[in-house]
Amino acid sequence: MASLSSFLLLLILLFAITLASSAASVKSYFPGIFQSSLKKNGKNLKPKIPYEAHYFPQNLDHFTFQPKSYKIFYQKYLLNSQYWHKGAPIFVYTGNEGDIDWFAANTGFLLDIAPKFHALLVFIEVSQILALKPLSIAWSYWFYGESKPFGKNSYKSAKTLGYLNSQQALADFAVLIRSLKQNLSSETSPVVVFGGSYGGMLAAWFRLKYPHTAIGALASSAPILQFDGITPWSSFYDAVSQDFKDASLNCYEVIKSSWTELESISKEGLAELSRDFRACKKVSSIYSARDWLWEAFVYTAMMNYPTESNFMKPLPAYPVKEMCKIIDESSPGASKLSRVFEAASLYYNYSQAEKCFELEDETDDHGLSGWNWQACTEMVMPMTVSNKSMFPPSSFSYKEFADDCMKNYGVRPRQHWITTEFGGKNIEQVLKRFGSNIIFSSGLQDPWSRGR
Amino acid sequence: MASLSSFLLLLILLFAITLASSAASVKSYFPGIFQSSLKKNGKNLKPKIPYEAHYFPQNLDHFTFQPKSYKIFYQKYLLNSQYWHKGAPIFVYTGNEGDIDWFAANTGFLLDIAPKFHALLVFIEVSQILALKPLSIAWSYWFYGESKPFGKNSYKSAKTLGYLNSQQALADFAVLIRSLKQNLSSETSPVVVFGGSYGGMLAAWFRLKYPHTAIGALASSAPILQFDGITPWSSFYDAVSQDFKDASLNCYEVIKSSWTELESISKEGLAELSRDFRACKKVSSIYSARDWLWEAFVYTAMMNYPTESNFMKPLPAYPVKEMCKIIDESSPGASKLSRVFEAASLYYNYSQAEKCFELEDETDDHGLSGWNWQACTEMVMPMTVSNKSMFPPSSFSYKEFADDCMKNYGVRPRQHWITTEFGGKNIEQVLKRFGSNIIFSSGLQDPWSRGR
Repeated sequence: MASLSSFLLLLILLFAITLASSAASVKSYFPGIFQSSLKKNGKNLKPKIPYEAHYFPQNLDHFTFQPKSYKIFYQKYLLNSQYWHKGAPIFVYTGNEGDIDWFAANTGFLLDIAPKFHALLVFIEVSQILALKPLSIAWSYWFYGESKPFGKNSYKSAKTLGYLNSQQALADFAVLIRSLKQNLSSETSPVVVFGGSYGGMLAAWFRLKYPHTAIGALASSAPILQFDGITPWSSFYDAVSQDFKDASLNCYEVIKSSWTELESISKEGLAELSRDFRACKKVSSIYSARDWLWEAFVYTAMMNYPTESNFMKPLPAYPVKEMCKIIDESSPGASKLSRVFEAASLYYNYSQAEKCFELEDETDDHGLSGWNWQACTEMVMPMTVSNKSMFPPSSFSYKEFADDCMKNYGVRPRQHWITTEFGGKNIEQVLKRFGSNIIFSSGLQDPWSRGR
Repeated sequence: MASLSSFLLLLILLFAITLASSAASVKSYFPGIFQSSLKKNGKNLKPKIPYEAHYFPQNLDHFTFQPKSYKIFYQKYLLNSQYWHKGAPIFVYTGNEGDIDWFAANTGFLLDIAPKFHALLVFIEVSQILALKPLSIAWSYWFYGESKPFGKNSYKSAKTLGYLNSQQALADFAVLIRSLKQNLSSETSPVVVFGGSYGGMLAAWFRLKYPHTAIGALASSAPILQFDGITPWSSFYDAVSQDFKDASLNCYEVIKSSWTELESISKEGLAELSRDFRACKKVSSIYSARDWLWEAFVYTAMMNYPTESNFMKPLPAYPVKEMCKIIDESSPGASKLSRVFEAASLYYNYSQAEKCFELEDETDDHGLSGWNWQACTEMVMPMTVSNKSMFPPSSFSYKEFADDCMKNYGVRPRQHWITTEFGGKNIEQVLKRFGSNIIFSSGLQDPWSRGR
């Protein structure tokens, strides 16, 4: 990964996460689709990375001044100073909705360019404390990240989750960067922020809100226009479908018509379906298979790189084309469902290591489930499936979504908040008048490219 | 008040408030000086203004998403639509640390220019709820403003005051403006924000943080550089003193040396001092007299307009010159203290309506005391008195200040927060690269002019 383009392509896939977890909260509109998403790595989760972990004492809440706002949590960040010359630039990766080690391990671009700029590299985890520990214990628990002190229920309480949002994350970055520069006596070092997917939105917004701190931002695959009706709600799934259509019209049509085959399976047929799908355990619903297929197509579209990659799963170069080849070249007598199963197996088992598939596994290996909370509060990104798509049609209702959020978290989404806080409408005009040094990049095949 | 310059001059004086109330929290460094500040209008506080009052349901906390963050308070704003054509600009006055009616009554500039632009005029009170009332009761209680449900103790609790800060105020503006434009079907109307003193800082920061909402800002007498050591701590009192020196060197010297005369008065001399100062009630300390004099010189410097004015108090044109004339022309045998008393009387009694002076009155007629809280949390503006000044020398210690804040409010100031959140260091460079359409204006005699 020595080139900018490979970095950008890599970042594109980071947004996989966003989709997986946000859709979980609109499950009633995409029934069950993402229940099993992003959770089946099951391998060693601690990648070896050339960074040193640090923990920064951060105020819990930057925007109120109650005594409890002053509680300290320890924000994890990673440092690489092997190329660093004092006074040289500081490149800050603004973290995503998951474990920062994982993103650092999959972001080679900063390491590639660090020697040229003698840059200090900093990866900051987006994190807010759940359990507040005294300063002397240099360890903590994050909303996003490796530790979840309250287990699966960590994400259930709006009281603790209330601080997990983009504005607090940006302020965390600003406070940490200021302190770091002061400690390094490098106040004049220019800071450039880098991010992809949700972290790309944070990078762009950081440059917009803290231009005195960052002189530029590279925001990759950052769909800052996916809010409040700016981008059509169907754009994401239209784009995924277009990727498959571009690879092969037949492939697109087989996938599109496979869903009715799946839906015709009765309760009695679940045992056979489980065998056909090589499920490790018998599935309890056809929707488990549907989720599993859906996820394979969506993530493969998001990771449709011209090179082999290994972020969510190991994948070949041009995986969409490879999937379609499987569908197009299968025996003419095979059912559509068996053909899409074989195609999806490419996503789940390119490494050939899987003996069976966990279709109903809900393990969250990358600490991602906080996103459901964010989707139910500020990050309201409505999605529908139009009839141009290869997925089964689906609509979106703010009211139903809000009711669901109320049920799950006790709060309602603030539908207009992101555009009120960060803008988005007429963004070209706004940025032309006021703004500079923000690169929005993503490949045109990236399903998120339509929202930025 | 038909000209821009008179508007600007007028706005300069708005910052009177900032000083008065912020200094109260550094009382140990300016002993007792501002105890009695800004409180002696005592007249009818409801000015007649050509605006209609409205109340906007606002979320209590924009930056957390706990159930209580969603509590509604009613933010007061004033509207004048008599010149308004749909689609024409919207001029928004971003309120100050006091009752919005009072600021509207003293800001004629917007009314002067509204006909030319067919502009809608909106004055928004900076407010956060203390007591949360159901939506049906279109009335509420603000941090700043006319109502104080808990009386003098409203400002004592960090729990309720925690939401009173500049970031929440800016977000309030953004949410209110978005909703107002939508309700008026005038989404394309350009918004320009106007403000003076603390409200001027808010106007500038609003343009910086919400460029998608406001296309420009007129920030008058807005000392956004008065933080974190950017401007020398002694600058404010140096500037006040320079104003008097410019009017008359003798005047400056008489005031400078009057303090030792005052301090030589023993407890037994307080009765005579009270008579000499025409106090309505016998003063309990020489510091009451000192506060009273100090306030007169500071506010007169801030309101040193070339025209008569009546914001804090009725004053003649060029009041500093008038004060110095009193000192310079007093009989040679008069004591320095009696000469500065006569000068200060110009400030307190230009209208000749006062039979005696309330030297120890602590009534807060303009709803200003929330500022003490802000000074103890985010708005940390250290001030010292240097020996170039005509005031008695005074130093500043962050530690002592923080200890005082802890004692009074249970929280410590976030010393670097304002510059972290809004910048300030190297501001020219930052604004050159990223920023536009912000006019920072103030007269050079404005004591706040050195901090912007």
